[in-house]
Amino acid sequence: MKHVVIAGGGFAGLNAAKVLGQSKRVEVTLIDRENFHLFQPLLYQVAMAVLSPADISSPIRSILSQYSNIKVFQGEVINVDPHHNRLTTDFAEFDYDYLLLACGVKHSYFGQENWEEWAPGLKTIEQAIEIRRRVLTAFEKAERNLSEEQPSKQLTFVIVGGGPTGVELAGAIGEMSRYTLARDFRRIDPASTRIILLEAGDRILPSFSDKLARRAVRDLASLGVEVRTTSKVSRISGDGVEIGSEKIYSDTVLWAAGVRAPVLARKLGVKLDSQGRIIVEPDLSQGVYPNIFVAGDLANFSHQTGRPLPGLAPVALQQGRFIAKNILREIEGNSRHNFAYRDKGQVATIGRGRAVVEMGKLKIGGFFAWLLWLIVHIYYLTGFKNRLFVIMNWALSFLTFRRGARLIVSKEWRFYERPDDGG
Amino acid sequence: MKHVVIAGGGFAGLNAAKVLGQSKRVEVTLIDRENFHLFQPLLYQVAMAVLSPADISSPIRSILSQYSNIKVFQGEVINVDPHHNRLTTDFAEFDYDYLLLACGVKHSYFGQENWEEWAPGLKTIEQAIEIRRRVLTAFEKAERNLSEEQPSKQLTFVIVGGGPTGVELAGAIGEMSRYTLARDFRRIDPASTRIILLEAGDRILPSFSDKLARRAVRDLASLGVEVRTTSKVSRISGDGVEIGSEKIYSDTVLWAAGVRAPVLARKLGVKLDSQGRIIVEPDLSQGVYPNIFVAGDLANFSHQTGRPLPGLAPVALQQGRFIAKNILREIEGNSRHNFAYRDKGQVATIGRGRAVVEMGKLKIGGFFAWLLWLIVHIYYLTGFKNRLFVIMNWALSFLTFRRGARLIVSKEWRFYERPDDGG
Repeated sequence: MKHVVIAGGGFAGLNAAKVLGQSKRVEVTLIDRENFHLFQPLLYQVAMAVLSPADISSPIRSILSQYSNIKVFQGEVINVDPHHNRLTTDFAEFDYDYLLLACGVKHSYFGQENWEEWAPGLKTIEQAIEIRRRVLTAFEKAERNLSEEQPSKQLTFVIVGGGPTGVELAGAIGEMSRYTLARDFRRIDPASTRIILLEAGDRILPSFSDKLARRAVRDLASLGVEVRTTSKVSRISGDGVEIGSEKIYSDTVLWAAGVRAPVLARKLGVKLDSQGRIIVEPDLSQGVYPNIFVAGDLANFSHQTGRPLPGLAPVALQQGRFIAKNILREIEGNSRHNFAYRDKGQVATIGRGRAVVEMGKLKIGGFFAWLLWLIVHIYYLTGFKNRLFVIMNWALSFLTFRRGARLIVSKEWRFYERPDDGG
Repeated sequence: MKHVVIAGGGFAGLNAAKVLGQSKRVEVTLIDRENFHLFQPLLYQVAMAVLSPADISSPIRSILSQYSNIKVFQGEVINVDPHHNRLTTDFAEFDYDYLLLACGVKHSYFGQENWEEWAPGLKTIEQAIEIRRRVLTAFEKAERNLSEEQPSKQLTFVIVGGGPTGVELAGAIGEMSRYTLARDFRRIDPASTRIILLEAGDRILPSFSDKLARRAVRDLASLGVEVRTTSKVSRISGDGVEIGSEKIYSDTVLWAAGVRAPVLARKLGVKLDSQGRIIVEPDLSQGVYPNIFVAGDLANFSHQTGRPLPGLAPVALQQGRFIAKNILREIEGNSRHNFAYRDKGQVATIGRGRAVVEMGKLKIGGFFAWLLWLIVHIYYLTGFKNRLFVIMNWALSFLTFRRGARLIVSKEWRFYERPDDGG
């Protein structure tokens, strides 16, 4: 019986586990920092108060409970000793025959990691709740700012990074301010909110065609979003961002720019790219230790197009399954295959009823692109319950413009530490 | 135009606002610490991973947006100056003609407030998320405790307080361990979880009839809950509770015992009861300042039965409406009426399909009691969306024993403060 250890329960790790769970020749241990699998493509909708965290999460051990050869642990992976085939976690050590590293990437602030406090990124449920708290609180603070007619610093939102996540966040804030919140405030006018999307490059959505990117700019403008390209942020602080000598005052800055790999990748002593991702071989191992595979956002696979595959769910999913099959092939005495990505296209939504979709030669924008986006995401969502609840939440917010999860949840649960005992 | 200020957006404050919103003779300002109204009777279901926070919350400003004479602010009430009719908050001061204090109570640890760290209470969404985190984490920790066969400290849950909340929490943990989690773990057997409900008095559910309380004890036993009466906790610490010389080792202690009023009540200089609640007159003012009313959990109204009315949603709701009508009567030149509570009965659920209900002479337990509980709660839930989602979540967990919100959300959103950069 071979022991396969999987670090990470995202799309790559989970789908590898599902394939391996059907084999009688392996035992599997999956370790994740969280107790749930997260459907990351919809995380921005949690940040934007449309969905609840539970709508896009499923307990990993419940998804995998049917496979009796899989053990699941919630814990942190600390180190890998590739010479002794041993993985160290914060609670135990595991000896492995095969190891799959699929622990994703985190946001990078290009060496200015202290910016994180002022400009949270969007990779985890905790961050989504924090962003939701900041965005909703900005409107509440503006309403109770009785000294200014239309408090501009509180009603200016800056999103750094013009990729799909930045576009989706900016569009959603535009829509929220123009529709959801429009009638609920007495003093301020949420519809006059300023939303600025900053991109360092010369256009947004660089992975899409130029035509679709221009369409996205128009759609964003109709929701009140100013798109500013070739605008590299030079400083972020408590009261806004600086672009060279220009300062934009803002209480709420969100980060959707670079990513970098966790230090674990560095500890392994294999080839990394400039973002710290592990450069993988055609079989998704890393060239030094044949029994260690890498999948998902953490892997830099450039054998197909000359450029790294994008950090998308379909890439991770296909790689996870592929690695599991390669392991089973090898155990059965066959040789490994080489990975080839079947391109599923890419998509970004811009508020309600609008999106841009690029699938091979198909390049569309507008309502049908959005409908396609919707169907694909529902289809890939994990679990019947999540599908049902997401459909219902979307139907509700589509029909009424309401947002089902418009609550500000603080980080503090203790009563006796509250600033005052008053109301 | 008279100005009515309402401190608190719970059942009392919100229902007072809805009545006053229909009058053209008043302007209303409602201030709450949160941006949402919370349906507190179902809060334990958030703590027990059945419902999401958003399922039982609605934004206060959205509920009241149709009333153009109502302003809503999220903020903290700091002080009341009853001689100058002025309320101080953390963002502004408000002059009022009438003031309604409806800011509820919090948990009391009988002078041992440091116990809160080890035994969270259940009054806020934040606390519910914290309890959910602790309960689910206990099972995860037990599973990864590779040194003990069945880690007893991690799989022992202690609930302090045998009122409805304590009974509901204990029953829900019993059900979760016996059904929801039973098949998901490999090493531990969640069904052998020890759940202990401690009550200082001589029986649980003291506000119910003796017969129903005995029935609840039997129902709890069938879910694995040990009920221990006349067991007064003398100490709570990081590794369990002490009852005199006996120690129960436990990683997870929950508090469902006493309550006390916020200091704001004390600052007013009016008559208080032993829990700090304001003793009110038959018209729900407090005898000193005729233009200050008190409603809900914060009010001690003993004119009807000789004992204070219980801290239940129907009491708060009726009092809020009644005070609003009294204010309008007085503004129109009529005299005030005296409050009389129309008893709606009381209810406590014990897991899936079981409850005890007492409504006047009707005293029932079992499935029909549970069905009645279910219908009443759905009926009183605020908002169509919440009703729909709660019904669906319940249907799902009734049919499948699954829990829709089984995710452990940490308090920390920043990446760079994580203990290690690993997995």
